Amino acid sequence: MGLKFRVKVPGTSANIGVGYDCLGVALDYFLELEVEESDKIEFLENGEPFSIPIEENLIFEAIKYTEKHLVKNIPSYKVNIMKNDIPISRGLGSSSSAIVAGIMIANKFAGDVLDINEVARLAVEMEGHPDNVVPAIFGGMVLTAHDKENLVYSSLINSDDLCFYVMIPDFKLSTEKARSVLPKTYLVSDAINNISKLGLLVNAFNKGEYDNLRFLLGDKIHQPYRFALINDSEKIFEASKKHGALGEYISGAGPTLISLNYDNDEFLKNMKKELAELSDNWTIEKKKINLKGAEVY
Amino acid sequence: MGLKFRVKVPGTSANIGVGYDCLGVALDYFLELEVEESDKIEFLENGEPFSIPIEENLIFEAIKYTEKHLVKNIPSYKVNIMKNDIPISRGLGSSSSAIVAGIMIANKFAGDVLDINEVARLAVEMEGHPDNVVPAIFGGMVLTAHDKENLVYSSLINSDDLCFYVMIPDFKLSTEKARSVLPKTYLVSDAINNISKLGLLVNAFNKGEYDNLRFLLGDKIHQPYRFALINDSEKIFEASKKHGALGEYISGAGPTLISLNYDNDEFLKNMKKELAELSDNWTIEKKKINLKGAEVY
Repeated sequence: MGLKFRVKVPGTSANIGVGYDCLGVALDYFLELEVEESDKIEFLENGEPFSIPIEENLIFEAIKYTEKHLVKNIPSYKVNIMKNDIPISRGLGSSSSAIVAGIMIANKFAGDVLDINEVARLAVEMEGHPDNVVPAIFGGMVLTAHDKENLVYSSLINSDDLCFYVMIPDFKLSTEKARSVLPKTYLVSDAINNISKLGLLVNAFNKGEYDNLRFLLGDKIHQPYRFALINDSEKIFEASKKHGALGEYISGAGPTLISLNYDNDEFLKNMKKELAELSDNWTIEKKKINLKGAEVY
Repeated sequence: MGLKFRVKVPGTSANIGVGYDCLGVALDYFLELEVEESDKIEFLENGEPFSIPIEENLIFEAIKYTEKHLVKNIPSYKVNIMKNDIPISRGLGSSSSAIVAGIMIANKFAGDVLDINEVARLAVEMEGHPDNVVPAIFGGMVLTAHDKENLVYSSLINSDDLCFYVMIPDFKLSTEKARSVLPKTYLVSDAINNISKLGLLVNAFNKGEYDNLRFLLGDKIHQPYRFALINDSEKIFEASKKHGALGEYISGAGPTLISLNYDNDEFLKNMKKELAELSDNWTIEKKKINLKGAEVY
């Protein structure tokens, strides 16, 4: 009998405020797969044929990428997507989770030749950006810096009481579009704004001191240019502030918005009401940080 | 008998690598003053008339600035500079220490109406940049973010074993000159370089984990443009790396260079030899972080 195993990868929220392209967090959304050796390569979703064609399937692409990297072919396999509640193209890391899943599948078939740090390096290489894939792998809130030779990351300590109120609209926003509105260059004052606040934001999360969280999330590199692409985003930030959240940011390249707050059902109820009055359909869910990261079992 | 007291303010090293305009540290250099009420305003240096004319005297200016801020005149005073081993115009915060001393003198005469946070706010307002004055006041390594309304700072934890090897040339470099060579705008990749590394640098200092210190100090906002203004600076960085330092940076706006390393007399000896071979005269001293900050006693 061939190898049979499961892979579970959390969703992620990156670009946390001033942490553009470097600060991300794993949240309790999941892509869960059942994998087994098979006589042909096959992708299913709950046992039914998978709707996405194989040439657009990122899991498949990541498996091939890993085979090429390892200079090793793995046996044919069947992947059954048992669960995927990570919203697609909403800024919650669905692509990164697929990439991580693919790499982990190939690595498992290849006999676990890559350790977790090598998995991370490969995922960053394939994805191009570290801030979703690294927390998807390790779990928790992770800060990453990288260049061609180096990849350095460090997990922050987060207090249990921090909740992510994830607000998702019924419209998509492509990363390409969200990137296209950013300026080519920035004033040094805008760079210093983000540099200085990122350091203090890291300290604030590590210590669980949230007094200045909204100020420290106050980005000048990506968010100011993206509000216009996300209908009612500034209005929602204002409502979140009014109802007592600790701070707000645009998740990934948007359009998902996130309020940070303690566990507070009153806040959730108030925000639901505010969102219900808008012209687009918005959902809101309270999510905790996922600390486990990607699992193969 | 009128009020009589002493003021002691440490020197500082700012712009630590990627922490441009936001990360500074107090070092064991000192400006020490003896202050007493007098029938006229007078500045002395070890009892002799002070060489710097009063209109260029930053201590005097900071006293006046504070009086204006408090809308309160203090009595006439005599300030005797007992010690000042902070090198002038070398990037070690001599101006900031003078400003902090002046504010603290005025505050003492005014009856300690400002608490330490108000002293810090006033010093940042007067100096324009927080990264020297804030560590000079609080001591230790301090990260600061500010805008017109907000000033947020947080002290990092530093391990006792971290030493600053301060290398000072016999030429000056004005802050104006050092600022004039910086570009007007930056690529987003350069901003992200500093944002991401600063967060990890903060974590590295807090945890005393120095494995990646040189990579994390690797700035793209100010240092690459300033090497050319500081003769042999890149050569000195190379020598420091060769002799096993943890990392290097340009202190403040230069020309002082700093190697970070453990307490290591062999390293000090090796660097002395390297510096002796250069065309300019360079001194090197091993300094510890000053944790006390500014004192009035």
